[in-house]
Amino acid sequence: MSPSNLSEFDIATAVKRQSDTSFTAELGAEWKVAGAINGGYLLGVAAQALRANSPKAPDPLVVSTYYLGPGEAGPADITTRLIRAGKSSATFALDLTQNGSPKTTSLATMGNLGALPDDVATSATPPELPDPEHCVDVAEAPGGFVESAPIVKRYDMRIDPDTAGFAMGKPSGRGLLQGWIRLADGAEPDPISLLAFLDALPPVMFDVGRFGWAPTMELTTHLRAIPAPGWIAVKLYTRNIAGGMFEEDCELWDSSGRLVAQSRQLARQPRG
Amino acid sequence: MSPSNLSEFDIATAVKRQSDTSFTAELGAEWKVAGAINGGYLLGVAAQALRANSPKAPDPLVVSTYYLGPGEAGPADITTRLIRAGKSSATFALDLTQNGSPKTTSLATMGNLGALPDDVATSATPPELPDPEHCVDVAEAPGGFVESAPIVKRYDMRIDPDTAGFAMGKPSGRGLLQGWIRLADGAEPDPISLLAFLDALPPVMFDVGRFGWAPTMELTTHLRAIPAPGWIAVKLYTRNIAGGMFEEDCELWDSSGRLVAQSRQLARQPRG
Repeated sequence: MSPSNLSEFDIATAVKRQSDTSFTAELGAEWKVAGAINGGYLLGVAAQALRANSPKAPDPLVVSTYYLGPGEAGPADITTRLIRAGKSSATFALDLTQNGSPKTTSLATMGNLGALPDDVATSATPPELPDPEHCVDVAEAPGGFVESAPIVKRYDMRIDPDTAGFAMGKPSGRGLLQGWIRLADGAEPDPISLLAFLDALPPVMFDVGRFGWAPTMELTTHLRAIPAPGWIAVKLYTRNIAGGMFEEDCELWDSSGRLVAQSRQLARQPRG
Repeated sequence: MSPSNLSEFDIATAVKRQSDTSFTAELGAEWKVAGAINGGYLLGVAAQALRANSPKAPDPLVVSTYYLGPGEAGPADITTRLIRAGKSSATFALDLTQNGSPKTTSLATMGNLGALPDDVATSATPPELPDPEHCVDVAEAPGGFVESAPIVKRYDMRIDPDTAGFAMGKPSGRGLLQGWIRLADGAEPDPISLLAFLDALPPVMFDVGRFGWAPTMELTTHLRAIPAPGWIAVKLYTRNIAGGMFEEDCELWDSSGRLVAQSRQLARQPRG
């Protein structure tokens, strides 16, 4: 890919090789949410390092990331360690630190989405959504939301009005957010931006009226197919809010109706 | 706990300390399925090592395990590495090898289930199941199933007749298995046996008529509460069978009706 084809997201998640197993990156302040660098963007940075060290298996089929401290704008150090190389896949460990302080640690199995068989027997169904132009543009949300979450402007995010009650102080209580997402610069989705989309929407706890920061403990992502061009439909839900924690499941559906990515995270409930 | 209070499962998953960060274990042939040591039992062994090195945060709140090769009966070496110690939790990496060959690698955050707040706002509902005596006892399954899966006798597993069609060659095609589980010796469930229960039932692919071995690539488990005594209700389902892989979600409900554990795995589809 020539540099002129790079998206804003590609550039913002780029890593610079320092050795066979180490990289540096510059985390951009424009990817912050509530004072910390967004976890989905951090996943994108990690995936760029993994891809650089796994040319034959370039796609992060499954990544499990433990969030150890809030990411800050500025330089980051990334190390990768090959744990096992198979015929068509490779498993790595990855650590991301800033000024020597651990921010994330991950395990990942890389593969080649383009070389997978083409069977599809998915029983899940995509969310029923109004067209993007009939959804709520998150960048136009009231109440200082955008100011506290500059990352909102890096995406074009449209929330289904039926699940956007939180923006008017009327959350549904169901623990469900759904809508559309694409990159703000119009770049088409790819496997690495899908990883970021899995942790880009407002927290699902907004729909149960809990608006504080909900720190992710762990997030596992599955990539299942290369996405078709166009909008990505997102469904975010929680079913087990208990014991000071909650799980958040995310599904990404491409414009062809394929369930291209799934994730689940365990997070601490907001204090507020 | 005095040795006389140890369950068969406690003894079978016991680890022996070799150094501050290393342990050995003896993997029992009676925990095999289709020729390999069961992944849930391996999780139990891993959890015993983590607990030994995390006395103040003894419960594996979240564990992500990558399966690297089939486990064999016999000795195993386990190493743990503390990544970050917090006030009430600690994150570790763990590797399990046999004869120098990697079998699993994990990340885990340990905590204290007994010290969590007691809020419960779970919207998920437990599976509707007939009483255990009206379910199908897996140990009595026909067709050589038990002979190829000796682990079946280590549990008391009862499958809801409505989801047990696979045992008569009539899978429902829904991708759903549910039923009851407890340890064969009658020991009550605890956080570590819950981990094993999450990967104990027959593979959910049986219910779509795919009976071959489905190797797990990655399994992430969430423990959310200390289970009440009694039977554990299990619900296992898949919604995205595609591209040669599938995801399998598992829920465990205790006798008080609490959703005490959840897991998701990514696995390769059986060849058969």
